[in-house]
Amino acid sequence: MITRERVGAAVDSPRFHHAIIGLIVLNALTLGLETSQRLLEGYGPLLRGFDRLVVAIFVVELLARCYAQGRAFVRDPWNWFDVVVVSIAIVPATGAFSVLRALRVLRALRLISIVPSMRRVVSALLAAVPGMLSIGALLVLVLYVSAVMATKLFSTTAPERFGDLSDSLLTLFKIMSGEGWSDVSDEVMRTQPFALVFFVVYIVITAFTVLNLFIAVAVSAMESQVSEERREQNSEDAAVALTILDELRALRAEVDALGGERPAVPDQR
Amino acid sequence: MITRERVGAAVDSPRFHHAIIGLIVLNALTLGLETSQRLLEGYGPLLRGFDRLVVAIFVVELLARCYAQGRAFVRDPWNWFDVVVVSIAIVPATGAFSVLRALRVLRALRLISIVPSMRRVVSALLAAVPGMLSIGALLVLVLYVSAVMATKLFSTTAPERFGDLSDSLLTLFKIMSGEGWSDVSDEVMRTQPFALVFFVVYIVITAFTVLNLFIAVAVSAMESQVSEERREQNSEDAAVALTILDELRALRAEVDALGGERPAVPDQR
Amino acid sequence: MITRERVGAAVDSPRFHHAIIGLIVLNALTLGLETSQRLLEGYGPLLRGFDRLVVAIFVVELLARCYAQGRAFVRDPWNWFDVVVVSIAIVPATGAFSVLRALRVLRALRLISIVPSMRRVVSALLAAVPGMLSIGALLVLVLYVSAVMATKLFSTTAPERFGDLSDSLLTLFKIMSGEGWSDVSDEVMRTQPFALVFFVVYIVITAFTVLNLFIAVAVSAMESQVSEERREQNSEDAAVALTILDELRALRAEVDALGGERPAVPDQR
Amino acid sequence: MITRERVGAAVDSPRFHHAIIGLIVLNALTLGLETSQRLLEGYGPLLRGFDRLVVAIFVVELLARCYAQGRAFVRDPWNWFDVVVVSIAIVPATGAFSVLRALRVLRALRLISIVPSMRRVVSALLAAVPGMLSIGALLVLVLYVSAVMATKLFSTTAPERFGDLSDSLLTLFKIMSGEGWSDVSDEVMRTQPFALVFFVVYIVITAFTVLNLFIAVAVSAMESQVSEERREQNSEDAAVALTILDELRALRAEVDALGGERPAVPDQR
Repeated sequence: MITRERVGAAVDSPRFHHAIIGLIVLNALTLGLETSQRLLEGYGPLLRGFDRLVVAIFVVELLARCYAQGRAFVRDPWNWFDVVVVSIAIVPATGAFSVLRALRVLRALRLISIVPSMRRVVSALLAAVPGMLSIGALLVLVLYVSAVMATKLFSTTAPERFGDLSDSLLTLFKIMSGEGWSDVSDEVMRTQPFALVFFVVYIVITAFTVLNLFIAVAVSAMESQVSEERREQNSEDAAVALTILDELRALRAEVDALGGERPAVPDQR
Repeated sequence: MITRERVGAAVDSPRFHHAIIGLIVLNALTLGLETSQRLLEGYGPLLRGFDRLVVAIFVVELLARCYAQGRAFVRDPWNWFDVVVVSIAIVPATGAFSVLRALRVLRALRLISIVPSMRRVVSALLAAVPGMLSIGALLVLVLYVSAVMATKLFSTTAPERFGDLSDSLLTLFKIMSGEGWSDVSDEVMRTQPFALVFFVVYIVITAFTVLNLFIAVAVSAMESQVSEERREQNSEDAAVALTILDELRALRAEVDALGGERPAVPDQR
Repeated sequence: MITRERVGAAVDSPRFHHAIIGLIVLNALTLGLETSQRLLEGYGPLLRGFDRLVVAIFVVELLARCYAQGRAFVRDPWNWFDVVVVSIAIVPATGAFSVLRALRVLRALRLISIVPSMRRVVSALLAAVPGMLSIGALLVLVLYVSAVMATKLFSTTAPERFGDLSDSLLTLFKIMSGEGWSDVSDEVMRTQPFALVFFVVYIVITAFTVLNLFIAVAVSAMESQVSEERREQNSEDAAVALTILDELRALRAEVDALGGERPAVPDQR
Repeated sequence: MITRERVGAAVDSPRFHHAIIGLIVLNALTLGLETSQRLLEGYGPLLRGFDRLVVAIFVVELLARCYAQGRAFVRDPWNWFDVVVVSIAIVPATGAFSVLRALRVLRALRLISIVPSMRRVVSALLAAVPGMLSIGALLVLVLYVSAVMATKLFSTTAPERFGDLSDSLLTLFKIMSGEGWSDVSDEVMRTQPFALVFFVVYIVITAFTVLNLFIAVAVSAMESQVSEERREQNSEDAAVALTILDELRALRAEVDALGGERPAVPDQR
């Protein structure tokens, strides 16, 4: 009989685990091969057939996992990730959805959810995100306000870069991401020399804010590292302090036994 | 009657707070829409009317806040920020002041002063500024001295980049901010090969100083983080040490009671 | 007689050590001179003769070291490094192996294995590598998946950059390494404006991951620094705690001697 | 009479100090004005006269300082800095030494040696240098070895960039400093596609090493910060431990007094 326990044991067995990892890697390679027009002409049906087979196996695997884990399956966000990434292959990719065909390779990202060490790394990366939200929102606000100002000021001078709000947003996002600003500023300053003030202020503010975004991530990473070490240290320190206290109390019991009775000094702990 | 207390309660009520935040966001969007020439032609009067309405509401809000808080209003620099940012819309923006029209979108930055989490982030960013002043001054000094030298050395070789002091300042500031230096150095080195020495020295010194500027910010951020944790830890340690001392003194009191009298050893604390 | 001990003493003597360092530096310089066609025409035989002499000395040196150290020689990876780097000069560099002639200068890297301070630095750098493997693997996965997607999406729009999988890998690796992405995105967006989504997502994800790769290195460097300091600190703390415990036990022994017998309280350590 | 003490007091007086600072700033500005050909034609004699006056004052100031401090003057490296920087103006700047005229503005760097806060910052920056020497040497070695290899491999393919050893050194230094490598690699790869291996290896190694150079500086900065805090903390901890020990010894003395004699347990400290 196919009980939950048996399915769970089969799905969690190392052999099955390794087979799935192998399948993911192999599938990632065949999806890479499919990008070559020449290979697609020669081996198209073979590659597509293998792809369908892999998707079928993944569907069966996820159903088995779901059956074995029951409600726990729904609670783990990594399972949702797997389901979404596999589903992309099942949705018919025609017409407006043809971009989904390119997204099929996202299936290779199942490697992250299935290899424990990569799962840990990505979890650690995601753990830094909440600490970045406030600074991220600030950055978006600065970008938006600067883009509105730049459009108003420079739309006639440099219509290609600051013609409308979306152009300005793109241009200023490029500058923020470290792309060169001197071409942009040179073009604008040819007719509006005072634009330099805008660019210098914008560069200093965003560089400073992005730097602090990075520092926030670094501090949160270091903090978790350091506080873990400290916790260990503290438990050692506490053990020593407890030994001293035990020793003291034993001593006090002896003194009590000597004197026969406790004096009026209360236990102050 | 409109008492200070009632105005203060109304201004600080969550509902009013959320309404103002909503108004700021909405106004930021309409100011963004105003950058589109097409929208301005179709809905210009509507957009401008809404803008005037928002400014009027903000003025009333700030007056109410000022009335409710009295002198405390003047002491909070964030209130000054709000007043300046709202005033920009009231100053007539004609002639030489037409640039003020572009600055109106700065009003959207009121989001920073009104959303507590963004206020905290910006306060933290500003807290790092004093620690950067000395290195910043050093950077300005290095930039100025290098610009004077570069103008003297390269003004005839590369008049577009080092023609006069302001050109040199701009060129060297660009290099400092991470823009490519190879175009600049290639142009100069075609006639003055030894200019390489100048560029390499300048790049190494500014890269090193800018790096240290960044580190100063990172250290100050980390320091405040770490010293807070340490303070907690210390208070725990102190509690344990006090327990041990109490226990010791209780013990001594017992021994005293046993012996009937203290010996000549003084309390050495 | 040439005993192991004598050879070992000779090979490890400071004078021999300095001679080998001098020879490595001199050889690095002559290998540099060999790159000049003019010098090669004038002094070719001299330079090549010196090169052969140096290789011969290095071979003798390594054989002597191997004889002196016996099995320990094989266990030290730095010796393997030396052997490989010297062997390159002995392999006949003709035909398909002519690239080996350019690799001969790798011999200068023996400086790293022979100067203790550089050896320490490189060992410290290599010590950070294991901590980077998981994030590095993640980066390679993201690069591969993005390249497959980009090839599928943009191969017809920008065949020079995304024509096949290897083109896409190179283009995306360039973007990851900080090369400008705006030329690439501008070219693609001319016909596929929604490509912007792909580029912004790719840039944000890789920038964030690369940043965390750097932080992982920084944290591991700082950790080893801090934990060393902490270990010293802990040993001091432990010494103080032990003194207190010793003092307490001596006291208890005295009290025991006073009372003549121990009470029922057990030693709780 | 002009005694050492009087001269020393005069030279160290705040008023004199501020006057010198003002003079340095003023002189920096006039040296900046001298870069303008137009101003030089109109006010040349005035500017040059003021410059000579300032140099004369600086010489007198340094002589006074030297007289007042005696041997201590020679030991302070900042004084050497001042002497060198002022001497540049005195050396006749003709013929081969005409470049010295451009170096005169280095005098403005006296601000660093005379303003205490900037002196501290620069001292802190210089303190990080010794910790960077080993990694710096490694970087130079990698640069040299790569340049020799690149010259041998690519000198015929890209003679402008890798024509001889100095070209290669410059090209590879540019890549190391963050200038784009894709133009260089594209040019070489057109005829030698496998050059990609060289560039990727070079970029990964130098990026990793430069990163570690930066981390070394950051760690040394943080370390001095943290260890200072820790020293304070340790002295507090030690005070508490001493109080406990004192208390214990007082107690033991009491017990001794009770029992009349010490038992055989020796003082184990």
